[in-house]
Amino acid sequence: MRRPMVAARLAAALVCLSVTAYAADAAKPTAPKPTAKAGPVAADVLAAAGPMDWRSPNPENLLYMDLAQGRVIIELAPAFAPAHVDNIRKLVREGWFDGLAVDRVQDNYVTQWGDADNTRTPKTAQTKLAPEFVVRGDAVAKLPFTPLPDRDTYAPEAGYSNGFPAARDAKGREAWLVHCYGMVGVGRDMALDSGSGAELYAVIGQAPRHLDRNITVVGRVLRGMDILSSLPRGTAALGFYDKPEQRIPIAKVRLAADLPPDQRDNLVVLRTDTPTWAAYVEARRNRREDFFPVPAGHVDVCNIPIPVRTAEAKPIQ
Amino acid sequence: MRRPMVAARLAAALVCLSVTAYAADAAKPTAPKPTAKAGPVAADVLAAAGPMDWRSPNPENLLYMDLAQGRVIIELAPAFAPAHVDNIRKLVREGWFDGLAVDRVQDNYVTQWGDADNTRTPKTAQTKLAPEFVVRGDAVAKLPFTPLPDRDTYAPEAGYSNGFPAARDAKGREAWLVHCYGMVGVGRDMALDSGSGAELYAVIGQAPRHLDRNITVVGRVLRGMDILSSLPRGTAALGFYDKPEQRIPIAKVRLAADLPPDQRDNLVVLRTDTPTWAAYVEARRNRREDFFPVPAGHVDVCNIPIPVRTAEAKPIQ
Repeated sequence: MRRPMVAARLAAALVCLSVTAYAADAAKPTAPKPTAKAGPVAADVLAAAGPMDWRSPNPENLLYMDLAQGRVIIELAPAFAPAHVDNIRKLVREGWFDGLAVDRVQDNYVTQWGDADNTRTPKTAQTKLAPEFVVRGDAVAKLPFTPLPDRDTYAPEAGYSNGFPAARDAKGREAWLVHCYGMVGVGRDMALDSGSGAELYAVIGQAPRHLDRNITVVGRVLRGMDILSSLPRGTAALGFYDKPEQRIPIAKVRLAADLPPDQRDNLVVLRTDTPTWAAYVEARRNRREDFFPVPAGHVDVCNIPIPVRTAEAKPIQ
Repeated sequence: MRRPMVAARLAAALVCLSVTAYAADAAKPTAPKPTAKAGPVAADVLAAAGPMDWRSPNPENLLYMDLAQGRVIIELAPAFAPAHVDNIRKLVREGWFDGLAVDRVQDNYVTQWGDADNTRTPKTAQTKLAPEFVVRGDAVAKLPFTPLPDRDTYAPEAGYSNGFPAARDAKGREAWLVHCYGMVGVGRDMALDSGSGAELYAVIGQAPRHLDRNITVVGRVLRGMDILSSLPRGTAALGFYDKPEQRIPIAKVRLAADLPPDQRDNLVVLRTDTPTWAAYVEARRNRREDFFPVPAGHVDVCNIPIPVRTAEAKPIQ
């Protein structure tokens, strides 16, 4: 008692006598109908996943950001923002972020880091870039896309592409990464080309989907969101820290590709284009755990954090 | 430069030359179409709001939870969960929470508090209650409801009721509070009647809407979400703290009604049933700030945190 969702989820066999009556009486939001208790729960889908269901991110796409609080690992998404990803690699390789800081933590919005005092000038990287807010034209058809069956409030179609939450327009002319929890974007000023990757942010609250298509999204935090989301909130306007000494120093940022293999974290990410993924999505759409008398029958694109784990053995590439 | 959304939002007059072309080319997700640059921005709507646009929550519905980190203020929603709210008042009045602790902080999910070790027995309050997961029947028609124009992934209709985010089924037979950021729910075990309000949680991440209609929601945090969301994450299963000494002690919880008026925080909450509210929603659906070349044209029910401020003068009741 009084150990709510806890004991709830750990327990497995407890029978809820009123489940059937309640579910039958409940609202059926929209088609397709909840499939209720059929099928495995999400944990069982993951437990049954084989090596081919997981992928090893390209080390050229992995950033390690080291803070005193621990390591944050970000996967970059060059398929959606090739110029920005290239520029971020240049920035990292010239040590841009080393010794800079997290300067903004706005509750229910973003944690942001970079050169708050505008003291540095990149040596090899660009200082501004044309926006990559969306992918357009022929490039859209080349992007893998696993749509969700559920309607999305913001986009005609939402789903997953290359392991990132994404959306498309109705005519297949544009695709874009969406601002889910943990997604990483490029800070910019008013000018659309004023971002370069020299200042980045991660989403730490309810998905701010109004930013979609208005800012370049470059990746997703695979590890360390618990660090970025629990930093003290800034008390100045927009969550900036009032005083420089409140900032959270960044020791260094490195590309995994630039480290010897034995110094890399061996993370794997669940693929989003497999039957296992489809089963995982279905398990999230309709929670079959006994705790839930009313399976939702739907899921928001930002409500399926894509599983990440440490590879026990190196998976097949 | 490199002061992204920041300078962006503070600035007001900068002209983005490419705005028109970009917006015209952008996907138009679903009807109704974005109204783009017409109308005021959200900050201007709030600035123009008069005393009648704000309400003073009933002191019988306000909980003050005092932690070393500061005060958390919760507004209870008796229209949606009358028995649970009544029981929570009894628990508070018998000092139930005083000296207990926050025992669980699960990243991107919930912060939870109560009697983790099950050491206490309520003196006047119930230990279990019939679920109030939804409001049914005639009571639904009596609830005020301001629908959003946008489609919702989870419910036939989403909107606001009495200042809380809510949803309804298609036939008006059920209504329920939805699990947005900052909403407060009643922890329970597997049995549907095992919650009583003796263990509570607040949502600290992406809205876990799959919990809607599966658990009793009793209110919303008006102040102090920055405290609850930035606590250290628990490292045991489900975000529980590993060791009792990691828990965050609760000094005391009081009802505002039980304090002398001069010891109450004088908060007011924006009404959700006024023309000002409608204008505010529209300003959130289509960001007219120059930063946004592509107004979203839509908004999620959980993406309009209902404004709260300290009353400068006591508003009209």
